[in-house]
Order: sequence, then C-alpha cells, then structure tokens
Amino acid sequence: MDIQLDCLPCFVKQTLSVLRMVDADEAEKERILRRVLEQLSHIDFAQSPPQLAQDIHAQIRQLADNPDPYAVHKRRDQELALRLYPPVEQQVRDSEQPFYAAVQMAIAGNSLDHGVYHDLSEEQALALLEQGLVTPVQGDLAAFQREVERARSILYLGDNAGEIVFDRLLLQQLPREKVTYVVRGGPIINDAQLQDAREAGIDRLVATLMDNGDDSPGTVLSRCSAGFREKFHNADLIIAKGQGNYETLSDEPGNIVFLLKAKCPVVATHIGCDLGASLLYRRSGR
Amino acid sequence: MDIQLDCLPCFVKQTLSVLRMVDADEAEKERILRRVLEQLSHIDFAQSPPQLAQDIHAQIRQLADNPDPYAVHKRRDQELALRLYPPVEQQVRDSEQPFYAAVQMAIAGNSLDHGVYHDLSEEQALALLEQGLVTPVQGDLAAFQREVERARSILYLGDNAGEIVFDRLLLQQLPREKVTYVVRGGPIINDAQLQDAREAGIDRLVATLMDNGDDSPGTVLSRCSAGFREKFHNADLIIAKGQGNYETLSDEPGNIVFLLKAKCPVVATHIGCDLGASLLYRRSGR
Repeated sequence: MDIQLDCLPCFVKQTLSVLRMVDADEAEKERILRRVLEQLSHIDFAQSPPQLAQDIHAQIRQLADNPDPYAVHKRRDQELALRLYPPVEQQVRDSEQPFYAAVQMAIAGNSLDHGVYHDLSEEQALALLEQGLVTPVQGDLAAFQREVERARSILYLGDNAGEIVFDRLLLQQLPREKVTYVVRGGPIINDAQLQDAREAGIDRLVATLMDNGDDSPGTVLSRCSAGFREKFHNADLIIAKGQGNYETLSDEPGNIVFLLKAKCPVVATHIGCDLGASLLYRRSGR
Repeated sequence: MDIQLDCLPCFVKQTLSVLRMVDADEAEKERILRRVLEQLSHIDFAQSPPQLAQDIHAQIRQLADNPDPYAVHKRRDQELALRLYPPVEQQVRDSEQPFYAAVQMAIAGNSLDHGVYHDLSEEQALALLEQGLVTPVQGDLAAFQREVERARSILYLGDNAGEIVFDRLLLQQLPREKVTYVVRGGPIINDAQLQDAREAGIDRLVATLMDNGDDSPGTVLSRCSAGFREKFHNADLIIAKGQGNYETLSDEPGNIVFLLKAKCPVVATHIGCDLGASLLYRRSGR
C-alpha cells in the first residue's frame, strides 16, 4: 500500500509525538521538526507508510541522540497488558467458542497502540479491551480455523509491545510445533522486540521465536534478513497483526491473513471497511 | 501569539483540506503539498499562525490557479446560517437577558468554521448552535455590557462567512451609530468579506462597514490598510471575534474583548482555558 497525501499530517503529528518523548530543548525540537518537514517534501509516494516511518524515526533517533524514545512507553504498555491479561484469558477459556474469542481479543490487543493513539491512558486501554470483547470480527473465522488445522507451517508476525501479550490467546489455539513468531529487528515506535515477546511468554508457546532483521514498523521484505525471508516464502499460512504489517505486505505474495483494527482512514479506505473495524482480512483472488 | 510546533500538523491538514476543494489532479496536488511542506521547513516561528496561513493559502491559490477555493463552502455556510438564524433571533429576543443571550449566540456562531472543522455537515452545524444556546460564556459579561454603554466608538472585527449572520444578534444590542464592522480584505479560507456582511444585513446595523485591506485570516495590523489602522488605534472598544483575531491581536495594544470558542489546543493553552470553551476574554493587566 502506497503513501497517500492524507498520511502526511499524521507523519508530522507522529514526529511531534516522538519529540515529546526525547530529552531535547525547544530549539533542538524545532530543528528536528524542520528536518522532517524538509524530508517529507521530497518523499517518494511509491513506498509504504512504514518504510517512510522507518527512515523518519531513524533520523529522529540520530538527531535526538536517543536509541529508543518509546522505551518508557513500551515498558508501560507491557506492564499494563500483563496486568490486564489474566481475566481476559479466563474469559476466552470460558467462552463457548474459544478460537473465535481468541481471534477477537488478539485483534482487540491491537488497540494498544501509541503509534496511532498518541496518548493512551490505562482507563482508555481497559475500555478498548472491554470493547474488543463485544466487537464482532469481520471475516471468515471458520475458514481461518480450518486453514490453521491444515497448515504445516504458520508464520505469525507480531506488532506492538503490550499487544503481543494478547497474541498468547491465539497462539494457545495454534499447533505449537508449527508456529514461528516474528518481531521487529530493532527499536521502532512502540513495536515489540525479542525481549518483549519473551516477557510476554511467547517463546513458550511457539516452536521458534525470531526477529525479522529489520526495524521498519511493518514487514518490508526487501529489508528483512535472508533467514526471515526464507521462512516467509515457505510458510503455508502467514498471520500478520496490525496496520504496519498490512501496509507493507498488502501487495506481497503469500497466503496472508491480516488481523487488525482499521485505526486510520487511509488504511480503512484501502481495505474498504469502516474506520475502527476489527478485521480478519484476506485479499480477494488469493 | 507565536506559531507552536503543534500548529504544524494542522497546517498540513488544512493544506490537504484546500486541495480537496480545488480542481487539480493528484500529481498537481502532490506538487502543491510538497511546496507547502518545503515552505513549512523554513518558517519563522516568531509570527502568528494566521500570518503563515496567509502565505500558505496565497501560494496554494496561485499554484492551483483558483482565486477562492472556499467560495462554494462560504456560500453554503452563509445560506445555512441565514436559514438557521430566524428562530435563534426569536430565542434571543424572548430571553430574560437578551444582551447575554446575544453574546452567547455570537460566540456559538463562531462554531461554524471550515478552517477548524474541515467537513461540517448541516446537522453538525445545527447541533453546535443548539449547544451554544445552553453553553455558558466564561468571562465578565456585566463589565462588557457596561463598557459597551460607555464606549464612544466600537470596532467590531468579524470572522467567518456564516458566523457573521449571528453577529447581527450582538450588533442589535450595540449603539448603531458608534459601531464600525470590519471584514477581511480578500478571500482567505472561509473568512467573511464585504459581500458576505452585506448579505447578512450587517450594513444596516452599523455606522460603517469596511474591510481591513488585508487577506490574513486574522488581523495583522502591519499588513492592514492605513484607514483600518487608524480606526483600530482610535477605538474605545474593540470586539474581536474568533481564533484568528485572537492569534494576531493577543500581543497588540488596545482595549480588546475577544469573543471566541477555543477550538484548538494551542489557542486553549495560550489563553489558559479548556478546549472548546466559549469565552469573553480580556487580557489581564489591561
């Protein structure tokens, strides 16, 4: 999915959002913002938004001399998710259709996103999760369940810190020995990395836990490691969480099921769904 | 009031909003957006947001070869306001405190703003006006009323097309022969001009109707006509409607009463009020 004109205000907003997290004075922040605006004036629209986000954030990290501006937020989101998790797991276990409930909550976990909701409070997070429990997922869940049962190998592409805790619910419904769970290869926005996945207990629920070797807030195949690309091309079924993975993989081959909340108008329009919809989405004709 | 970092996403958003109104293909819109982003990367933060908006919109009008992109929207807002006006006038007339009710509705009229609310439907406009009828105005209305009675000359600075129809309510409470009503000197966003004021019947309620000789979406004194500046410096009381007039006049001398809804977080923070507040605001120490 290519960058749209409507993505631009969001890039500027996200820049300001990062600038609030770094230790820099107003003059320094102004200098960084000017650099980003200048960069935006030259961008190639024929790339996905996460590719550009990767470059912008790399520049901000360098200019602000801060390797991981979202560290504190990720920490908070992980702790929050781990605290909110147990009763949710119980509810899924008690559900009449645990597989469906697990999909539903794995998508609801995608609400915990500082990249989109710039200042998410604990109350708002809880409200989003509770909403998730009663929000129907659009998409063919029965077909997805059949496919999970048939697949010889499943590649599960994670998304954000915090959110990944709720991926446990769906992972518990998958055949452990066939699943590889993948996180980003470096700090980018609030996206999950290996230590977050381990903290969430993901490593105990899958055959392989790995990173993709790249720090885009999505999955830019050409920038990922050869090892990851091989896994990607050989997977029977790819489960891709979140907007970033959708934006970067919507035009790639592969048997991909996207699980996401459509949080931004550009993505919702591209998919053809309502803003805020919870989706199990498979591209037509595949 | 100077431009803040947080103004930048809004400038980009407003640019996209104008681009939706002009007749240009995607490549042309992309070119204009790039130019604006480049311009934003060099801006002087020591100016008010409307000064920059003036320059940006002038550039867009020129690049898009469209002298007044908001013409259709202004037309719609005027017609909408004229349609919604009669029952509101009746309510103000029937009110126990017509002066207060008039101030309240003149401020509520400031809700009709395409510069801030990019796509305002008729239902939303009606809802905003109805809300205005029950929203208390923060500020010393009694002191304002006394001042109106004492003043030998009143300069009333209008704001948007549509909104100005509701200024009639307050003008009816002012001594006609002492009032000069001022609009912008050229098309800028959805701001009112002479023809809008005449259509709204303003000319029949004031001694003088004039424009300020400038097309900023506010009142940038240094860019206004000498005739207007003279009026400004000689006025006993200046009533300034809307955020644009606040942003450009907050640091200027003069006995200014600002009537506005605080529609953006930057202005609300600068004033020290809640976002969305209806205000009769006078700077302290004046």
